[in-house]
Amino acid sequence: MLENKSRTDLSALGEFGLIRHLTQHLVPKNASSFKGVGDDAAVIDLGGENVALISTDMLTEGVHFDLTYVPLKHLGYKAATVNFSDIAAMNGTPKQLLVSMGMSSRFPLEAVEELYAGIVLACEKYGVDIIGGDTVSSRIGLTLSMTVIGEAKKENIVYRNGARDKDLICVTGDLGGAYAGLLLLEREKAVFKDHPTAQPDLEGNDYILERQLKPEARVDVVKSLELLGVKPTSMIDISDGLASELHHLCSQSGTGCHIYEEKIPLDPMTIERAQAFNLDTTMCAMNGGEDYELLFTISQNDFEKVKNNPDISIIGYMTAPEGGLQLVSRDNSQHPITAQGWNAFTESKEAENN
Amino acid sequence: MLENKSRTDLSALGEFGLIRHLTQHLVPKNASSFKGVGDDAAVIDLGGENVALISTDMLTEGVHFDLTYVPLKHLGYKAATVNFSDIAAMNGTPKQLLVSMGMSSRFPLEAVEELYAGIVLACEKYGVDIIGGDTVSSRIGLTLSMTVIGEAKKENIVYRNGARDKDLICVTGDLGGAYAGLLLLEREKAVFKDHPTAQPDLEGNDYILERQLKPEARVDVVKSLELLGVKPTSMIDISDGLASELHHLCSQSGTGCHIYEEKIPLDPMTIERAQAFNLDTTMCAMNGGEDYELLFTISQNDFEKVKNNPDISIIGYMTAPEGGLQLVSRDNSQHPITAQGWNAFTESKEAENN
Repeated sequence: MLENKSRTDLSALGEFGLIRHLTQHLVPKNASSFKGVGDDAAVIDLGGENVALISTDMLTEGVHFDLTYVPLKHLGYKAATVNFSDIAAMNGTPKQLLVSMGMSSRFPLEAVEELYAGIVLACEKYGVDIIGGDTVSSRIGLTLSMTVIGEAKKENIVYRNGARDKDLICVTGDLGGAYAGLLLLEREKAVFKDHPTAQPDLEGNDYILERQLKPEARVDVVKSLELLGVKPTSMIDISDGLASELHHLCSQSGTGCHIYEEKIPLDPMTIERAQAFNLDTTMCAMNGGEDYELLFTISQNDFEKVKNNPDISIIGYMTAPEGGLQLVSRDNSQHPITAQGWNAFTESKEAENN
Repeated sequence: MLENKSRTDLSALGEFGLIRHLTQHLVPKNASSFKGVGDDAAVIDLGGENVALISTDMLTEGVHFDLTYVPLKHLGYKAATVNFSDIAAMNGTPKQLLVSMGMSSRFPLEAVEELYAGIVLACEKYGVDIIGGDTVSSRIGLTLSMTVIGEAKKENIVYRNGARDKDLICVTGDLGGAYAGLLLLEREKAVFKDHPTAQPDLEGNDYILERQLKPEARVDVVKSLELLGVKPTSMIDISDGLASELHHLCSQSGTGCHIYEEKIPLDPMTIERAQAFNLDTTMCAMNGGEDYELLFTISQNDFEKVKNNPDISIIGYMTAPEGGLQLVSRDNSQHPITAQGWNAFTESKEAENN
């Protein structure tokens, strides 16, 4: 059914381009469809006190994870928490999870139990109920698809499009660590390939390995902000790197931004590892991705409330759109921020020939 | 990560066994998790007038569909409607859909557009809004995962476990057609393999081909039953064949049943095709699957309300559990009903060797 047709490679559009292309003409018609495609989660309003936030993610073996170095239990944990992170990015709390798995007969029951144990562990930690899913066979490999449902009061939801000129730009935690962890794992994989008897050299790198293999969703920050009485003006989670997420917030809010390189929070181990790999640490934070920290903006009036919070760094401010997105480097020069985010359709090379 | 472990093949458990094994200890803890794993959809109650019904399905290439004869637009349509069917089976109305697709670079944009067009067509027909999803790359093949959200008044939801002794057992439409259509398509595929220039011989088989390629969800029957003032006591949709679904209703309701072979609704074309393939038509209805009709039970008091409805056939009645599940054949002899439902883990043979 794929012959004799004109052919445009998906990589020409990229993931965001493809989603935009497919969904641009969709107009929700049901009253309960309060917010559709275009944010970290959709919003369904059934007229109750809380509305439902809903988001879904698909992960495929060989593209999103590599089972040569990712333990199945970690994979399950991460697949769940990255979904929870989408709910946190809406300023909500994750409550339910649907878990679908497609796997080939290469996976025995014991492997599926490992994977599921990781999912259950994440659910217990975050107080999320597994309420459904699907378990199917696939011809090859492992595919995970999860759908998370969260809750929030409608008036508390934070979208990507609410930032205004002069709002302060904040990030939680530190950035670049997940990418440094990935590089380390890839290096050891390459060593193992050449010397199958070599033991992996991962000593002393627990923090960045954990950032890559077992990230957490910043639901704790959502709670802290509520206690501080701060409602962000816009928010997104950092899955594709700071640069890409800044582009989402700015384009949807109609703003530009100034980001101060020296303010980007980095863990010492990330810096050390990046230097050992001859990489620029700012690049790791801007384009590395998978940190699952929150990027959000607040009104300047809220500055006093967040300035001493150890989980939150203020890294810049929103500007009028004309100025574009600028990184102010340590020598005070400005550099346009380009989103190099991950293009799954370019970077994963085809494993099949038909 | 899969080495040096004891190894139990998933096929030893089957799909239902695996789901039971993984989910048996899950106990929902959040107040909004009204009903978890174990029915056609989960139920989320946010305190509004309506509750949300939510269900998810994953379809993988080479296991659930064969692109050598399934047009992508039909695949998209079917993937959506089989999800809608799960909501109908709860006596609800589908309202929102999340669409996730994993595909290899073998699929050009034009193929994805075809697939999506089928999904959009189904959504337009059923008044469902696409509100999210995920679009990712995979190493090989096509994987579709959809999550549907429906609505119902809480008191109108019908579960699998509400049937009582003497309730009447009803099915909508006719059965076995989707299986007859599948056999026809498989036959033509085999012919094509041996004679690539041969034209497929599908003439005059539109009905059963459509049953297989483009099934509908019986949301119309949900509306009819409401108009008739009938609330089923239990309900399920027929995805794995009548026998398997009867086992679900009976085991969850704690009943047995008597089904009259002569009452099972069959389309003349299904009968003709089954005979041409030397198959027993009752077997096609009992074990063929994919008809996506509704199987439900009603109180005998509601008999008058449904008896003249052309969409509904009364095929038997529930009994005390001791009698088991019995098929009463045309010669009035009884045969225990065994669920041969489809075991994806047995029937799909491995395409990979690692």
